[in-house]
Amino acid sequence: MAGTDSRRGQLPKDAPPGPAVILVDPQMGENIGATARAMLNCGLTDLRLVRPRDGWPNSRAIAASSGATLVIDNVKLFDTTQEALDDLQFVFATTARSRDMIMPVYTPRAAAAEIHQRMGKSGQKCGVLFGPERSGLVNDDIARADAVINVPLNPGFSSLNLGQAVLLIAYEWSQGANETPPRALHTGETGPVTKQEFDSFMERLEEELDNGGFFTSPDMRPTILRNLRNLFQRMEVTGQEIRTFHGIISTLTGQKKDKAKKKKKA
Amino acid sequence: MAGTDSRRGQLPKDAPPGPAVILVDPQMGENIGATARAMLNCGLTDLRLVRPRDGWPNSRAIAASSGATLVIDNVKLFDTTQEALDDLQFVFATTARSRDMIMPVYTPRAAAAEIHQRMGKSGQKCGVLFGPERSGLVNDDIARADAVINVPLNPGFSSLNLGQAVLLIAYEWSQGANETPPRALHTGETGPVTKQEFDSFMERLEEELDNGGFFTSPDMRPTILRNLRNLFQRMEVTGQEIRTFHGIISTLTGQKKDKAKKKKKA
Repeated sequence: MAGTDSRRGQLPKDAPPGPAVILVDPQMGENIGATARAMLNCGLTDLRLVRPRDGWPNSRAIAASSGATLVIDNVKLFDTTQEALDDLQFVFATTARSRDMIMPVYTPRAAAAEIHQRMGKSGQKCGVLFGPERSGLVNDDIARADAVINVPLNPGFSSLNLGQAVLLIAYEWSQGANETPPRALHTGETGPVTKQEFDSFMERLEEELDNGGFFTSPDMRPTILRNLRNLFQRMEVTGQEIRTFHGIISTLTGQKKDKAKKKKKA
Repeated sequence: MAGTDSRRGQLPKDAPPGPAVILVDPQMGENIGATARAMLNCGLTDLRLVRPRDGWPNSRAIAASSGATLVIDNVKLFDTTQEALDDLQFVFATTARSRDMIMPVYTPRAAAAEIHQRMGKSGQKCGVLFGPERSGLVNDDIARADAVINVPLNPGFSSLNLGQAVLLIAYEWSQGANETPPRALHTGETGPVTKQEFDSFMERLEEELDNGGFFTSPDMRPTILRNLRNLFQRMEVTGQEIRTFHGIISTLTGQKKDKAKKKKKA
């Protein structure tokens, strides 16, 4: 009977693919439900929760979703933000505050256009990260994103609740049928690197920097690593290019020469 | 002390005049509060209530307004829709359903543009009518309006709650006046690298890659170098960050260790 239950909510058959919505450490079930409702209002269905405070499933979330079961029934749970992003290629972080990190900052409207352009023409997978209700996203999670979305509101009263923030982003996405990109990155045949390939590159770089004694101050190590991640992230690197960087590290550390020598000897 | 209470919320001094928001027969105080909050988020302050079910003032509304007292304290009460519209010159009615009446139907974005044009250039007074939670506006109230706003949402799940509907209209109005660039790179204190610093970094990288035997095919060398330059260029790197990259090269090539050894010996 599900198919005839109008409360369940549906998507039109020709609905375009939309971005994942990732809530990190959400506290109130009501906000998760409001998020699911706002998503389905705007044609989005991929909701991911990282460590929801009250566990999952959550009866308050279901009540507040007003019948958006198409979203609620497909919620995916994760222990870490990293895992929640693994299959995505371009991720926005929503944050009200300006941070120390150097990242492109989009309005919701420009972000919506960027997502349509990436998902529609290039078939990329995109997502939007939202932090917990009071504190917002931590810097380490922001550093995993490729860009930031900042909603320009009344500076004298700018705090939105979580469900409202999701609604505005999802609404802008839904209104973005116009696919003229305000800014486009032409990656040719090869697509953006997956988060997994990217993470393993960052791990290797960190190891080689440790080997070389790059970090003179242990206190600064986490900040420098986060800034490095942010710096490489900003490059919007492709899978091919990450392999080039691996080659560069092999070369600079002499691993390539060693291999060549071994070959000559043999 | 009210002036120094940040919870009160404020409007920028140069805020443009905005439309009145008129709620007809609102039932739940929570929705009136959410309306006040969404309005002040977006720079609107003129809230009018026609026959609120639970009277006025309403403690639930005040709680849900999250400190938007600038709106709550100035609420105006009316017995009829007609009186609530008396001083206005152009009124939109929000409705999800198509009606028998023949009226211009606007998207929220087009309505926002219309309101800005009327209020800004011609100094007209505008308003937006919202009906009660379950039933929406009655035909007699719609007939008092000059035009209809219809929010184009997922047709399979299009019902918004009252506070969310007000947020979307108020948000579109606020974006019509907003001059935030759609995408900006926040580089903080330090600016983008100069071309000279960038070129000398690329030269050093090239030299070190040559030393390490990175280029196995001389034919491909120019292409690879061009692609590497493009890759780093794309990063929109700052002067500080180029120095970090120099440090990384020194580390990976062992030059940093050598220096440290020399220091120890001396």
